[in-house]
Amino acid sequence: MTDFESLQREYVQLLIREGVNLQPGQRLVLSCPVEQAAFARLCAAEAYSAGCSEVIMNWSDDALARMKYLQAADSVFDECAPWRALLYNSTAEEGAAWLFIDCDDPELLHGVDPDRIRRSQIASGKALKTFRELETSNAFPWCVAAIPAPAWAKKVFPDLTEAEAMQRLWDEILKSARCDSGNAAARWRAHSDALQDHIRILNDYRFRTLRYRNALGTDLTVELPDGHFWAGGREKCTANGLLFSANIPTEEVYTLPKRDGVNGVVYASKPLSHNGNIIDGFRFTLKDGKIVDVHAERGEEILRNAIAVDEGAAYLGEVALVPCDSPISNSGILFFNTLFDENASCHFAFGEAYPCIEGAETMSRDELKAHGANQSITHVDFMVGTPDLSIVGITHDGREIEIFRNGNFAF
Amino acid sequence: MTDFESLQREYVQLLIREGVNLQPGQRLVLSCPVEQAAFARLCAAEAYSAGCSEVIMNWSDDALARMKYLQAADSVFDECAPWRALLYNSTAEEGAAWLFIDCDDPELLHGVDPDRIRRSQIASGKALKTFRELETSNAFPWCVAAIPAPAWAKKVFPDLTEAEAMQRLWDEILKSARCDSGNAAARWRAHSDALQDHIRILNDYRFRTLRYRNALGTDLTVELPDGHFWAGGREKCTANGLLFSANIPTEEVYTLPKRDGVNGVVYASKPLSHNGNIIDGFRFTLKDGKIVDVHAERGEEILRNAIAVDEGAAYLGEVALVPCDSPISNSGILFFNTLFDENASCHFAFGEAYPCIEGAETMSRDELKAHGANQSITHVDFMVGTPDLSIVGITHDGREIEIFRNGNFAF
Repeated sequence: MTDFESLQREYVQLLIREGVNLQPGQRLVLSCPVEQAAFARLCAAEAYSAGCSEVIMNWSDDALARMKYLQAADSVFDECAPWRALLYNSTAEEGAAWLFIDCDDPELLHGVDPDRIRRSQIASGKALKTFRELETSNAFPWCVAAIPAPAWAKKVFPDLTEAEAMQRLWDEILKSARCDSGNAAARWRAHSDALQDHIRILNDYRFRTLRYRNALGTDLTVELPDGHFWAGGREKCTANGLLFSANIPTEEVYTLPKRDGVNGVVYASKPLSHNGNIIDGFRFTLKDGKIVDVHAERGEEILRNAIAVDEGAAYLGEVALVPCDSPISNSGILFFNTLFDENASCHFAFGEAYPCIEGAETMSRDELKAHGANQSITHVDFMVGTPDLSIVGITHDGREIEIFRNGNFAF
Repeated sequence: MTDFESLQREYVQLLIREGVNLQPGQRLVLSCPVEQAAFARLCAAEAYSAGCSEVIMNWSDDALARMKYLQAADSVFDECAPWRALLYNSTAEEGAAWLFIDCDDPELLHGVDPDRIRRSQIASGKALKTFRELETSNAFPWCVAAIPAPAWAKKVFPDLTEAEAMQRLWDEILKSARCDSGNAAARWRAHSDALQDHIRILNDYRFRTLRYRNALGTDLTVELPDGHFWAGGREKCTANGLLFSANIPTEEVYTLPKRDGVNGVVYASKPLSHNGNIIDGFRFTLKDGKIVDVHAERGEEILRNAIAVDEGAAYLGEVALVPCDSPISNSGILFFNTLFDENASCHFAFGEAYPCIEGAETMSRDELKAHGANQSITHVDFMVGTPDLSIVGITHDGREIEIFRNGNFAF
């Protein structure tokens, strides 16, 4: 086994053992592009050696996906096949683990009719509602992780040959997952535990409002719901009580904003690859939580469609803090992939909120909404952190506490 | 485009236009191994250019299938996932076209517990009952066709390098589909029409009984049901009335035997690759239609399990005539793949009967059974033709007509 193969093997072990924390007798659903079948087989072998009852493959293919968007009958974009909905919803309900292997071409759907993308998202959003709600509430263990693919690698490293770009992207992925020098699982747990330090401080303050400002033009106040808490790193699956890592890598601590309590202007600090299209140079104006104005230098129609898939898509659902000196950020690389770019930058998401509210596990959807959690079939992260970002927290008794100074935690 | 690419393109066109005869607005389900994604994309592109509303992929992977049989929990072999059943049954019910790309490793499941294979077959047989019945009665257009894969090609041509074996297998596949020298669709239609000559003669005689004999030891009488007819070549889809080709290649004319009217001994003349295992040197003894004795030099347990998946699996469901001087037979190649080997040899199948009975389209399953059609969740062809095979037909008025002499049609 070469050094690289041995690092890759450690990465696979990390995804199965720490990512979804697969247990004996549990099913694993593996979402993977057909081009990456060799990697899928490594994951499946590791899963079976962990006692997996059955690996179910959920294959995809970029080329066929693009062909469908360009050439299929218009009516199919208002449908999500019932068998597909059943695959997602039934495995989520039984508590199967889901591992998503992400290597999307950031511009896969460039030139596709944005309305087809929007309608398709609405259709699958409705059909996979059960799956999404169980995922968001950690009712089953899930993990999103990446491996390189040629189109993505060349987008990130356009000056390298394809082979060099692939190897370089592998290096960055393995490094970000702490799989670059042995002992990956222990290092991953230590990293996850380290995120708890900031979480504890933030939870002690229980801020009422956060105020974001930077030279890019961001000037935003974000109210936080009563009873909110900050989370990050490994999370607890509500079905089996075990810790899993929903994202590998992860550098963020996050909570949810109060649905109708966000006001001001926020500027994106990185381009966003969303649904196979790049959106860049964009800003939102929000009033009482709702995005009331949108501008983008590139991909504005895609962005407008993305916040129009349902009512909740135009409200925020996540507030996440990532210091500028995080490892991914320090690499200086623009990944055109949210899994990495969100972990190099403070970000928000528009759409469905993570239910980071005390007692959420016993609340109905209506009760969660009444507590200020936004609801939507979508959830899209966008990056806002800059090296000059300032975030001030205002407590319920009116104290102003510096949280971020010059893009990094102030405490 | 190279010559080979151009032949391959003609093959793809043949599969889409003549194989499933895809119509505008119709869905196509494409069953294909992930390793053959490039070929699947060619088929999808051709389908969309024929007006296909949507291509649905039904991916498989040999390595993961084998891994599952060897390592998954024992209970999963008694299940067929409901979402999988819904994919098959719902697309069959809507009249979608199904194209099966076959390149199975003939020994994929060698060493796997035969009981797991049997139970898995029973589970999927029950769950996909609707699909199988609609397929057998041509209620939707379907086509099984092959492309080479390394494991299969090396099994067929063990003395060639992998690349040579792949190319050689491509050559044989393209030749058998009449895609070796241009004008493939017209040649395919002419070939299909030529099969009608023997069908007309056989249908005029309406034989009561067929008697098979050869030096291998076969001595079998096969009663045919009243109202049976012979078929072959292109067939009519009952949903849209259009002709499709269920097998590419095909050289057979076939009908069904009377369920309880088969008696004697029949020897296989070629090995059979079934469910990823090779069965060789085998014979059946039949009494009143039922297989009452089985012997195989290799794979006997696999064979015993195959005829035990349900009651009908031990009765015959197909009688097919293929002359020894058919093109595939003349190649002298043993393909270890039923799609080819069945078209180089007279064969029978055990399991579900094709409903080749006048008026079948308006009969219930019970009525078909009363007419002598065998019913089962399985249907497995096995080859019995030899260069000395004699088949005599006995008419209802007692005349004896020579049908096959020395392995070829006598008329």
